[in-house]
Amino acid sequence: MANELFQYSIITALMDGVASNGLPIATLLSHGNHGLGTFRYMRGEMIILDGKLYQMKSDGTVTPIDPSSDDVSPFAMVTQFEATVATTAALSSKEEVSALLKRILPESQNHFMAVRLDGNFKSVTVRTAAGQTEPRQSLREVGKNQTSHTFESATGTIVGFLSPQYMEGIGVPGIHLHFITEDRKQGGHILALETGGEVQVQAAALPKMHLELPVADDEFNTAPLIGDAAGVAAVEG
Amino acid sequence: MANELFQYSIITALMDGVASNGLPIATLLSHGNHGLGTFRYMRGEMIILDGKLYQMKSDGTVTPIDPSSDDVSPFAMVTQFEATVATTAALSSKEEVSALLKRILPESQNHFMAVRLDGNFKSVTVRTAAGQTEPRQSLREVGKNQTSHTFESATGTIVGFLSPQYMEGIGVPGIHLHFITEDRKQGGHILALETGGEVQVQAAALPKMHLELPVADDEFNTAPLIGDAAGVAAVEG
Repeated sequence: MANELFQYSIITALMDGVASNGLPIATLLSHGNHGLGTFRYMRGEMIILDGKLYQMKSDGTVTPIDPSSDDVSPFAMVTQFEATVATTAALSSKEEVSALLKRILPESQNHFMAVRLDGNFKSVTVRTAAGQTEPRQSLREVGKNQTSHTFESATGTIVGFLSPQYMEGIGVPGIHLHFITEDRKQGGHILALETGGEVQVQAAALPKMHLELPVADDEFNTAPLIGDAAGVAAVEG
Repeated sequence: MANELFQYSIITALMDGVASNGLPIATLLSHGNHGLGTFRYMRGEMIILDGKLYQMKSDGTVTPIDPSSDDVSPFAMVTQFEATVATTAALSSKEEVSALLKRILPESQNHFMAVRLDGNFKSVTVRTAAGQTEPRQSLREVGKNQTSHTFESATGTIVGFLSPQYMEGIGVPGIHLHFITEDRKQGGHILALETGGEVQVQAAALPKMHLELPVADDEFNTAPLIGDAAGVAAVEG
């Protein structure tokens, strides 16, 4: 169904290092064409754009992942995206993306929102996680082993979600964006952005969420899942 | 689908007094046969048992609600319950229900669980909320205007859910139980319980959750939804 959010697992599980297993890529793609997430052992950043799924790694490479791949995702958010609002905007920060979404979807102040930005960016700073060096290593630890890169005057696409604050523990409150260049050869999790002129903006509210939790997964079953809002903000903010 | 949790709205919205609108009863019942919740203006406690929905009010009455009723629910949790575990147990507190569920569903320590208890209870203390005296009155305020009653040696059924701690803000972490007597004429939200001998226990894990948020609802759209864990524990614990 269009504009329903499908999410596999919860951010608190990633914080606890639950990343050895996950949802098969083909199953994930059956739930939508627009999304983000990570891979087994948190090896790199996932972006799903127009139904194609890419793995962006800390060595700077971007690899399209075949839907029949036996790879899995321990955490992902995806939707069958059908923009209900389209506009153009010049933006100088991630926070301005949040503010813009709140402005163009005034009836959905407390809903999830999906967003896509296309165009030329004066500057986009991304990080790509290298991944766990051992099973159950926490996302906080994984965050210490990542590559950052700033693209200057890069043309590409940003895919992401705005999540309500009350989703703390389940998802990443606030704006969460991944970037991929137009040639689909570089990208990552966005830390900062600034557009040159105006970029294209497409957005939709997602008032229904389908949350699927890991089953028959000992890591998930034994994780404390206490929550670490400051930790999530530190590594996903 | 059996043993998937459907939830309408979030507990934080009830805390903020978002209760003037809601999901039609018939729609709610299309998602399951076992559940609990509340009604417009939080007038009383809802229990769904074997697909029948009852409104338990603070005047002590219990009314079966016709599925074609134009009543709505501003917050409810429901599942198509198919027990995967059945046993008998003597229990002396709500906390023992939680502990029992964790013991009989060892692979689901971090999943929602649905539970049903049938039998004779030495003592069941319930409360029934009178409801809002004005729109947007918070659940904390509503909690000050409720009736408590202790049933002694009552035969009946308890319906409820165990929710993971990480669901704070979305649901009621821990055990949440509603009671109805065998003749379906009395009941409420359980504050305390003690069985006489053993009662029948049926349970299932619910690893998938479908969360539907209010749309076109100005109360929900403008609610702060900041969260009040202590408040939820005070009125729903």
